[in-house]
Amino acid sequence: TLDADILTTLVDPLEDPVPGVGTYEDFNTIDWVREKSKDRDRHREITNKSRQSTVNLLHSVSDAFSGWLLMLLVGLLSGALAGGIDIAAHWMTAMKEGVCVVHFWYNHEHCCWASNETTFQERHHCPQWQSWAELITGTSEGAFAYIVNFLMYIFWALLFSFLAVALVRAFAPYACGSGIPEIKTILSGFIIRGYLGKWTLMIKIITLVLAVSSGLSLGKEGPLVHVACCCANILCHLFTKYRKNEAKRREVLSAAAAVGVSVAFGAPIGGVLFSLEEVSYYFPLKTLWRSFFAALVAAFTLRSINPFGNSQLVLFYVEFHAPWHLVELAPFILLGIFGGLWGALFIKANIAWCRRRKTTRLGHYPVMEVLVVTALTALIAYPNIYTRMSGAELISELFNDCSRLDSSQLCGYQQVSNTLPDRPAGPGLYTALWQLALALVFKMMITVITFGMKVPSGLFIPSMAVGAITGRLLGVGMEQLAYYNHDSIIFKGWCSQGADCITPGLYAMVGAAACLGGVTRMTVSLVVIMFELTGGLEYIVPLMAATMTSKWVADAFGREGIYEAHIRLNGYPFLEPKEEFEHSSLAVDVMRPRRSDPALAVLTQEGMTVGEVEALVESTHYSGFPVVVSQQSQRLVGFVLRRDLLISIDNGRKRQEGVVSSSQVVFTEHTPSQAPDAPPPLRLRGIMDLSPFTVTDHTPMDITVDIFRKLGLRQCLVTHNGRLLGIITKKDILKHMAQITNRDPDSILFN
Amino acid sequence: TLDADILTTLVDPLEDPVPGVGTYEDFNTIDWVREKSKDRDRHREITNKSRQSTVNLLHSVSDAFSGWLLMLLVGLLSGALAGGIDIAAHWMTAMKEGVCVVHFWYNHEHCCWASNETTFQERHHCPQWQSWAELITGTSEGAFAYIVNFLMYIFWALLFSFLAVALVRAFAPYACGSGIPEIKTILSGFIIRGYLGKWTLMIKIITLVLAVSSGLSLGKEGPLVHVACCCANILCHLFTKYRKNEAKRREVLSAAAAVGVSVAFGAPIGGVLFSLEEVSYYFPLKTLWRSFFAALVAAFTLRSINPFGNSQLVLFYVEFHAPWHLVELAPFILLGIFGGLWGALFIKANIAWCRRRKTTRLGHYPVMEVLVVTALTALIAYPNIYTRMSGAELISELFNDCSRLDSSQLCGYQQVSNTLPDRPAGPGLYTALWQLALALVFKMMITVITFGMKVPSGLFIPSMAVGAITGRLLGVGMEQLAYYNHDSIIFKGWCSQGADCITPGLYAMVGAAACLGGVTRMTVSLVVIMFELTGGLEYIVPLMAATMTSKWVADAFGREGIYEAHIRLNGYPFLEPKEEFEHSSLAVDVMRPRRSDPALAVLTQEGMTVGEVEALVESTHYSGFPVVVSQQSQRLVGFVLRRDLLISIDNGRKRQEGVVSSSQVVFTEHTPSQAPDAPPPLRLRGIMDLSPFTVTDHTPMDITVDIFRKLGLRQCLVTHNGRLLGIITKKDILKHMAQITNRDPDSILFN
Repeated sequence: TLDADILTTLVDPLEDPVPGVGTYEDFNTIDWVREKSKDRDRHREITNKSRQSTVNLLHSVSDAFSGWLLMLLVGLLSGALAGGIDIAAHWMTAMKEGVCVVHFWYNHEHCCWASNETTFQERHHCPQWQSWAELITGTSEGAFAYIVNFLMYIFWALLFSFLAVALVRAFAPYACGSGIPEIKTILSGFIIRGYLGKWTLMIKIITLVLAVSSGLSLGKEGPLVHVACCCANILCHLFTKYRKNEAKRREVLSAAAAVGVSVAFGAPIGGVLFSLEEVSYYFPLKTLWRSFFAALVAAFTLRSINPFGNSQLVLFYVEFHAPWHLVELAPFILLGIFGGLWGALFIKANIAWCRRRKTTRLGHYPVMEVLVVTALTALIAYPNIYTRMSGAELISELFNDCSRLDSSQLCGYQQVSNTLPDRPAGPGLYTALWQLALALVFKMMITVITFGMKVPSGLFIPSMAVGAITGRLLGVGMEQLAYYNHDSIIFKGWCSQGADCITPGLYAMVGAAACLGGVTRMTVSLVVIMFELTGGLEYIVPLMAATMTSKWVADAFGREGIYEAHIRLNGYPFLEPKEEFEHSSLAVDVMRPRRSDPALAVLTQEGMTVGEVEALVESTHYSGFPVVVSQQSQRLVGFVLRRDLLISIDNGRKRQEGVVSSSQVVFTEHTPSQAPDAPPPLRLRGIMDLSPFTVTDHTPMDITVDIFRKLGLRQCLVTHNGRLLGIITKKDILKHMAQITNRDPDSILFN
Repeated sequence: TLDADILTTLVDPLEDPVPGVGTYEDFNTIDWVREKSKDRDRHREITNKSRQSTVNLLHSVSDAFSGWLLMLLVGLLSGALAGGIDIAAHWMTAMKEGVCVVHFWYNHEHCCWASNETTFQERHHCPQWQSWAELITGTSEGAFAYIVNFLMYIFWALLFSFLAVALVRAFAPYACGSGIPEIKTILSGFIIRGYLGKWTLMIKIITLVLAVSSGLSLGKEGPLVHVACCCANILCHLFTKYRKNEAKRREVLSAAAAVGVSVAFGAPIGGVLFSLEEVSYYFPLKTLWRSFFAALVAAFTLRSINPFGNSQLVLFYVEFHAPWHLVELAPFILLGIFGGLWGALFIKANIAWCRRRKTTRLGHYPVMEVLVVTALTALIAYPNIYTRMSGAELISELFNDCSRLDSSQLCGYQQVSNTLPDRPAGPGLYTALWQLALALVFKMMITVITFGMKVPSGLFIPSMAVGAITGRLLGVGMEQLAYYNHDSIIFKGWCSQGADCITPGLYAMVGAAACLGGVTRMTVSLVVIMFELTGGLEYIVPLMAATMTSKWVADAFGREGIYEAHIRLNGYPFLEPKEEFEHSSLAVDVMRPRRSDPALAVLTQEGMTVGEVEALVESTHYSGFPVVVSQQSQRLVGFVLRRDLLISIDNGRKRQEGVVSSSQVVFTEHTPSQAPDAPPPLRLRGIMDLSPFTVTDHTPMDITVDIFRKLGLRQCLVTHNGRLLGIITKKDILKHMAQITNRDPDSILFN
């Protein structure tokens, strides 16, 4: 039963006879197996050639190291860009309140550092830095000055946000949002041309700075992942290996996602784990190592630019002194429950709002929407110092442990002794608590409508801010409870009078982790990022307890994190790698054609004419066609992609002499005998995939979904007792899953 | 073309009609797809039932949390065992030199701590602790006392090592070695019954303590991974979910590997990455999170036992004060090159020695071998303080930065000023350098013959010791160079006179990482483990530079790490997930039957009698048989495993009335019409796998290997144009790979 065409020689992989064959159209899913196989062929070719001459050997070596070089470049560029964004955002945020009269390009802090007249205590007040009221009216006192400052604040905020949304709309619509849902989709094998392009990068950087500076409740950490991926994608064009291969390029993009988080938080290990856990789809161990390298390079590049004004690598440097006690796990778990509830609520509310934006007239006025939200934010945020300051500053202050010299309102304790025990709260702290409570309510509400607007917007900082405020409030509450009840049964034994037993900053940190976990459902990476911020394994247990609780609570209300929810909202063809397929359907229930549908459109390996093939392709919209031995036997030979078929027929008609509509299309190895006066056949075996994936009709769908995920398939053919029955595409699976969960299967928009 | 049997109802997955069907024999490979599918069926069943009653709901909840409970138990037990091993090994190591006369169960350190008469300086000398010479002869001075101590040292060493090897041989031969190669193989889906059993665990713990205490050049860190995996495997028996499912159990074992490294180094994140990078095969993200949890629990359990006598979590706590300079990357890279060379050389030498042990008469006298090596080690090691102390102590001392109070010989600098700049070496340091150089040569040689003997033996500590010695030597060299040439072009600008610019301890650390990397080829996990030891991101760059260099250099001499080399030496059927399959063969080149072989043994779905089936099974040794529609069409219906077939026929003959040799065996849905006087047919559709994996004969082997790896297949059927051609098993692939690299294909021993 061995046919004659078994021992065929394959087409030379580096030879690319017809241009366009083997490439993808926009909004299509790549075939991972084919891409990876292509790369292996290319690698084999280079290795074989390398034995022939020194030039080829050098080529082979440079090819092997090009991955590392690319990683180095990605790290350097992303680190530099992140540093630039940081500096610009600091400067423009400060500009909302005033200006440095001596060096206008200094931000508030630098301005007063440069001045020698200030002491450490007064480091935020120096004559060189003038608020707008001072500059315009000559005084910074009184109601009039306050109103001038307020108006200037709103003016700048509106200007920045207007510029941001206008630039995004005019030049790069892909630059809006955090970009992580789309990057997840791209990494899973989808093609969105221009999403990681030059324009998107440029506009994203500019508008990110503007959006952050406008005071909107958003962060720059998520979009930094998009920026890093754009850098990686652009730099890929320097290397043939990565330019031409979609699978290899996605390896680099996975590493770039790690780089993005690494520069956002100064946490390279956390970044790598974030990429592994949250965004990547195909993440071989080689990529792990390279990601780590790139993340480190980026973190150190960023540090050498030194945007945070200190030599710390991390965004929030925290150093706690007191250990925590086992009893404190109870409030930590409470914070976890709060984080989970808030995460679930936020996702529901945000998705409902975004759906409203998509479906009602609201979506037609993105500029107006942004301006209204900015005005609202500025109006409410300005009077409260905790909302006026940027999210990152707020979190930093909340994480901070009160030292004795600390002049912050949050450290407004009554001075009891010279040491640093738990102290009774003073009036300053009570004011701060009220302001924080108001800030919490405001942040919780405004973030829901902010995330998803047509400006670059990250979610890390706002979520962490909500959690940090809650945590600090709870922490101070616990501290006061412990101070006034140190003889009660709960505190006795570990928290005697005059001891420093509760660290409110730690509570803020745990709360921040819990809320971020609830919203994004990150686990390991979140704990590791937080661990890198504190640098002590000590505090991992509270973080882990809160993160675990938060995830469990949030999962009880819905398994999706915010990114998956946005992916589904946008109808991207994304096959979640984490969710198990729970239903007991079989391949035959999912495959096309259904019972009532017309039969599967197939090509036969011989006997069809060019005209017939063209008519078949015209009359359908399928992306590919199975090739069978004959219509009667339905025995499968291979699979041909629509795009390749059209290009090749077109090419054949143009280039090959005598190919007309009545020419036979031949997919076999040997040309079948024809009538002597017949036109020459068009041989298309070269474009046929000789190893299409098949499953039997009885294969359970959980196994089929597993195969799709693990191998990154685009489609899979279904056979019964050796005969072709139908086809399952990724979209069919997604539609089937939507159907099972009672969603609209047509919400899966793209192919 | 839809046959009638498409819409069949499946057999209830929880119903297990014939006992034994679906289980595996020893030394067989599991089918991951089947196992995972089984678990999903089970889970679906429980979820469906949970809606019926409260009891079932509770069952469902407890099932969901059983994984976490199991992880908690694994963490607690492993942490406790590691602590116990540590304490016992400390005590017995000290016993070789002397005894605490007041409390004989105290080790040297504890004994002198308990004594109030000692100062900090004299913490190793106290009247309560008496050397054997003191105890026997009454004096600790003079040549005679030295000889008595020496003899007692050798006596104890021989006694310990004899007990270790004797116990291993008598009770648990699987307890020898580090266990990591076997665990890698088991995690990849192989079954070795008893390897992770109760006996192995008990004997491994006892003999590990004995082997470490005997002073042999081996560590306890690798075997701790085996211990943790044994714990996990034993605890799996408490939960049906894990006891009955080989795939689920392997998830737990992956986590246990992380736990092992976590307790070995006190590095939970590094442990998880070690499991991910080095040992695991199938590592879903859920397992990542659970591993992390278990690793943390274990690390904190270990700390609460506090075996290191301080409250540090980590094995080697290091705190460096001086930053490193870019110029120092040159020596760090040199260390990387040394590490790579040593790693490659060690693997070659060790494998050659182990092969000799396997093939010559050497292997027949394992007890004698261990005793000879122990005697040799003790004889050479005793006179040199750096070889006499345990490997962990040595590394700890080498990593240490010299503080001003340090009385160690390694800190024997000339006192220049009261500060701590780079200082000229004094006589004490010169002596130490000589001793270290001798220790280096000795360690390098003795480790080659020690690793692989029939006692538990880890490789981490000896490799790190070699690297740490080299690093320290280079570090001191650099320090002296800088001190005497601080005006030269290299040091000018960053290392002025009187500055503390070179930290020899850091060099030791980098060297240790380089050597360990060269031997094991770990990358990310190694850097993260080292990072967790220092706790500062500062020193990651030197570590990364050295590790990268070391891996590249070592890979140039052979791609295999020591564990892969031992896997191949032992002929385990392990399909390396990291190596790409580079050859351009097709599935048809690898499949059986070959051209000259007899045709593939197949069953037909109807028409064969029980006697014919039995004869076919008897006449072959295959583990499974494809079922086809008919011998003529060769259209594939399913796949039946030999074991299931034999059990079911046996069961049918016993239980089902009228089943005789002439009964028809039926794999179809509907019983075919038979002659009225024919015996009742034996229906075996229930044991047939209706969704066997198939590839076409033209599928390139690189894709096939990828499928095998990613899906964890045992076998795959090969078709051509819809007709069954042959079969490829994991063993066929391994044999093919062995053939390509000119190795003996018959070295793949097991199925």
